[in-house]
Amino acid sequence: MVWEIVALVAGFISIGVAAYLYSWVMNQRNGSERMEEFSKMVQEGAAAYLRRLYQALGILAVIIAIVILLALGWETALAYLIGSVSSAAAGYAGMYIATRANARVAWAARGGLKRAFPVGFYAGGVMGLSVVGFALIGMTFLYMLFKDPNVVLGFSFGASTVALLAKAGGGIYTKTADIGADLVGKVEFELAEDDPRNPAVVADNVGDNVGDVAGMGADIFDSYVASVVAVMLLGNVLYGMQYVLFPLLLSAAGILASLIGMLVVRTGESNDPGRALNTGTVVTAAIFALLTLGVVLALDLDNPWGVFWPTVAGLLAGIVIGFTSDYFTDIDQQSVQNTAHSALTGPAILILDGFSYGLLSIVPSIVGICVAMAAAWVLAEQFGVAGTYGVSVAAVGMLSITGMIVSSDAYGPIVDNAKGCAEYGGESEETIAVCDRLDAAGNTAKAITKGFAIGAAALTVLALFAAYAETVQVSVLDLREPGVVVGLFLGAMMPPLFSALTILSVGRNAFKMVEEIRRQFREIPGLIEGKAKPDSALCVDIATQGALKELALPGFLSLVVPIVVGILLGREALGGFLAGSIVTGIIFALLMANAGGLWDNAKKFIEDGALGGKGSDAHKAAVVGDTVGDPFKDTAGPSLNTLITVMSLTATVFGPVIARLVLFRL
Amino acid sequence: MVWEIVALVAGFISIGVAAYLYSWVMNQRNGSERMEEFSKMVQEGAAAYLRRLYQALGILAVIIAIVILLALGWETALAYLIGSVSSAAAGYAGMYIATRANARVAWAARGGLKRAFPVGFYAGGVMGLSVVGFALIGMTFLYMLFKDPNVVLGFSFGASTVALLAKAGGGIYTKTADIGADLVGKVEFELAEDDPRNPAVVADNVGDNVGDVAGMGADIFDSYVASVVAVMLLGNVLYGMQYVLFPLLLSAAGILASLIGMLVVRTGESNDPGRALNTGTVVTAAIFALLTLGVVLALDLDNPWGVFWPTVAGLLAGIVIGFTSDYFTDIDQQSVQNTAHSALTGPAILILDGFSYGLLSIVPSIVGICVAMAAAWVLAEQFGVAGTYGVSVAAVGMLSITGMIVSSDAYGPIVDNAKGCAEYGGESEETIAVCDRLDAAGNTAKAITKGFAIGAAALTVLALFAAYAETVQVSVLDLREPGVVVGLFLGAMMPPLFSALTILSVGRNAFKMVEEIRRQFREIPGLIEGKAKPDSALCVDIATQGALKELALPGFLSLVVPIVVGILLGREALGGFLAGSIVTGIIFALLMANAGGLWDNAKKFIEDGALGGKGSDAHKAAVVGDTVGDPFKDTAGPSLNTLITVMSLTATVFGPVIARLVLFRL
Repeated sequence: MVWEIVALVAGFISIGVAAYLYSWVMNQRNGSERMEEFSKMVQEGAAAYLRRLYQALGILAVIIAIVILLALGWETALAYLIGSVSSAAAGYAGMYIATRANARVAWAARGGLKRAFPVGFYAGGVMGLSVVGFALIGMTFLYMLFKDPNVVLGFSFGASTVALLAKAGGGIYTKTADIGADLVGKVEFELAEDDPRNPAVVADNVGDNVGDVAGMGADIFDSYVASVVAVMLLGNVLYGMQYVLFPLLLSAAGILASLIGMLVVRTGESNDPGRALNTGTVVTAAIFALLTLGVVLALDLDNPWGVFWPTVAGLLAGIVIGFTSDYFTDIDQQSVQNTAHSALTGPAILILDGFSYGLLSIVPSIVGICVAMAAAWVLAEQFGVAGTYGVSVAAVGMLSITGMIVSSDAYGPIVDNAKGCAEYGGESEETIAVCDRLDAAGNTAKAITKGFAIGAAALTVLALFAAYAETVQVSVLDLREPGVVVGLFLGAMMPPLFSALTILSVGRNAFKMVEEIRRQFREIPGLIEGKAKPDSALCVDIATQGALKELALPGFLSLVVPIVVGILLGREALGGFLAGSIVTGIIFALLMANAGGLWDNAKKFIEDGALGGKGSDAHKAAVVGDTVGDPFKDTAGPSLNTLITVMSLTATVFGPVIARLVLFRL
Repeated sequence: MVWEIVALVAGFISIGVAAYLYSWVMNQRNGSERMEEFSKMVQEGAAAYLRRLYQALGILAVIIAIVILLALGWETALAYLIGSVSSAAAGYAGMYIATRANARVAWAARGGLKRAFPVGFYAGGVMGLSVVGFALIGMTFLYMLFKDPNVVLGFSFGASTVALLAKAGGGIYTKTADIGADLVGKVEFELAEDDPRNPAVVADNVGDNVGDVAGMGADIFDSYVASVVAVMLLGNVLYGMQYVLFPLLLSAAGILASLIGMLVVRTGESNDPGRALNTGTVVTAAIFALLTLGVVLALDLDNPWGVFWPTVAGLLAGIVIGFTSDYFTDIDQQSVQNTAHSALTGPAILILDGFSYGLLSIVPSIVGICVAMAAAWVLAEQFGVAGTYGVSVAAVGMLSITGMIVSSDAYGPIVDNAKGCAEYGGESEETIAVCDRLDAAGNTAKAITKGFAIGAAALTVLALFAAYAETVQVSVLDLREPGVVVGLFLGAMMPPLFSALTILSVGRNAFKMVEEIRRQFREIPGLIEGKAKPDSALCVDIATQGALKELALPGFLSLVVPIVVGILLGREALGGFLAGSIVTGIIFALLMANAGGLWDNAKKFIEDGALGGKGSDAHKAAVVGDTVGDPFKDTAGPSLNTLITVMSLTATVFGPVIARLVLFRL
């Protein structure tokens, strides 16, 4: 019992510190009147979107909870609801502070970098610590109550369904607004980014919050919980209670490490705050490794080194993948510069080059994931622990420092919004320059956290895959059986299908947004001269309604197809299905994230003055590339992690029921 | 012995009819002086390219033959060399007649559709019948000599290495020339397609021949042989000699069916010749089904229905996939028209939409392949034949009508070239209109044959996968083993990697081509006024050198990586590797082929007068989409079939050696 209480206390400490940071940020001055006006519009837009999203999610959650109740009993149904609410709460908390911190950061930027940076970072910290706090408290509490990891699995499933819809919906929202604002505002009317005359500027800034803050928070909440639950399930089947508690204590250690790491993050007036964020990550990782050693020894496990080394391997792999994954998207590298050069022949070859480098960028990450997996497996087996348990623990090792990772990741959109606020508020050039530097630091940190998230998601779904096989008791998943191969193909088809549906949604909604913006410029007299205000709320509404409507089909497919495959073709086929979806899910996630990032930076490279600079033909070509990349990197790509987690969890949760209902076996 | 002789005779009949059609086509009038001049330049350009390609291939083949000699003995090495030469010979024959038929078709077009159509179709027939004839003679001859399917496997491997380089090299060549010609000629100087002033027009037409004729011929030669050999290997391991001979006799039946089908292909002056081609395909399939029944009964197999029904299932699946796979690329469908509409907002959303529909288009084909595979498996097992044998026989069933399929496929580039010839020759509008109708028929046929080729390749590699497992004697390939999963990821990475390398090659070479064309327009006085001739040979040379140089790395990787994976991680990991490469290979092949076809047709839809027609902003956006799609559909996409076949064959050929050398097992 003492260990559960340790974990619970760590969770409450996390929430306590988050509350303290929250009040600290809220006590900062709220900015000028005009900033406040902007901030208010973003707050209202974001709140309106989240209200509607959570309404839709609420109905869905109740339906799924009823299905679970009937199929698996009230305990899992309850856990499912608690998981949904916790995930939504963490996302809401992050979004709430983020939309209030923007004006505060912008105001503090008047006082320079050193004043403004902590406001942004601590606001991000509220999000990071909420995520890990809510997650750990929820899992520990449910385990204390029911002593059954299968019930905690329901918690994870709840978090995951929320994450899928929050992430995909946020992704559709943010790019609808962004592309609409860019295509009309920047290209047709040649307005600057965040120009207050652009009717879609508020929607665009709302989008950053609902996509990058609330969506991303729900996404990492989901991976974090899923990795812990997978280890709990495997520990339960293979060993005893100590091995079930172990991942909870790793999470507790990760929270403490993150708190210490956050204290280290400081920056002077002339330093690069991006480096401060990355230093924080490295310090957190080092402290976490030390604490893990303590946990392993204190828990009195049979084979302490067989869990310690895989944890460290996972952690190291996360950092290595993180620090190398931005190679292809780095503005100083060949890939970005070659792509930018091809803009001289127009957009077509620029797009081909970016796409190709995106494909190439798959290679190092896949090799990294394979090495991490093999190392964790071999290290575990070497010291007498099952290889599957080792791989799963490596995933938890990677994700344990989530508190720190999410803090620096959420920092990005907050300072990006602060910049919007400052521009809207008509601040001085110096203040905007400070905001620019804060924003650049966010991008530096994001390159690393993005690689981290994909690597961690890959190991997590592999752990879930192992947990699925244990849960439905299939002893082999033989690629020589036709059922497994058919499943493999069908599963592999899902991530492209999901991507297609979400990207088409963005295209359709952006088209509507473009028409609305054009209409406002045409019909509102004095708008273009800056004498009248645009109807921002209408643009917010278009993005909100579009995103929610478009979610229905991909959401439905990802929950229903695994169950249908399982019932029609059997649990082996469903195993193959999961494997196929994991493989193409990771490949398309990497392709889309990196190609999108690369086109973005190729455009920035030209905007920094190369190849004719802003307004040149090369720049126009690069803008096309950037627009193509937007839904790649911010809608479809990041949703795929969540998609494969949801499908794996669906299979694992309903696996025992499916196994009884199979209609046909190949 | 009598059955082998039947197969051999069928092969010789095929070659005999090909020779007859050859002399018939060559006896047609060769066109006007100007047409002849054009045709000559294309002939020389194509011959120069093939000469260099075959030199490079010759060196490679000798090196690989030596490796095989040392590892597996002289019989397989000899078979390998014969396979290489046969595949190259079939490709050369097709290319030889195609580059001579173009002017003849163009001349015959003066006499109307009914006169011109058979010239194009019978020239295509030379290619189709050469492919199946050479393939069947080679395989039967080697089997008669050595009575060992493993030796025939060497023949298949030889055909496959030639196919990979011919297909990928041809793909790089053709798009280098095409994009270069379009970007400068059409966009900058607003010349028509095939305008004789454009320095890259000859290279572009050469490209059609080396890519779509020689490359495609080698590609289908490869699938055709591989599917037969896979069945021979499985028949040998699982049953007796009758089951080894069976696929050879199916091929013989397919040749006879194709000959009859070709007789049916006729068209009147006002009919659609595309429908005549498709009728020919359906008639061939029906006759083949009847002949198969005869073969099954005559061979006196133990379980005749267990091989008959899978064969028919494969054949039907091929036709269904073929006739439905063009849904997403059809100019009359929603997907193309929606994509064309998004051109109104510029190229970015057009590209996103086309890419998304390309992703969606994966779904029906994957489902079709899964159904075909499951049906073949179940039908075989139902009648007492091993499921793997059933799936492999289904692949042969699909591919058996290759003679007819390749004939109508090769018809396409021939009449496309004839149109170039007619435009270059300054023919009348009526003649060019006839050529246009011939060309449109080629596109109708191509939509079907393309789906057919991908479906057949999928079943073929699944058959090879089974053959690999039998050859290296792995009893299970368990997705719960880390080695298999690591292999799966690494294999899945290969098709994107290969695509990236080939698309980047096109981008690089097209850049050089663009510069050369611009230079010629700048430096050759009177060129733009039509008073001076361009230096076409220099453009041909740039495309040739570029294609060959860029082949080295992807070719090397596809031959070496499977061996390295096998030696480093073991034969189970290599099995996972093959499965991974098959899954993403098919998915990326479908995505690229269909997205490319869709952008092409979206452009044509606008050129037909919709949304502002030629020269409008929407048209310019659609041209960007088409240019992005070009290397998708004609370089990377079609090479992936061959890539996965080559890797499967490499694994199977060297499997027994690899199994002895394994360094490390996960």
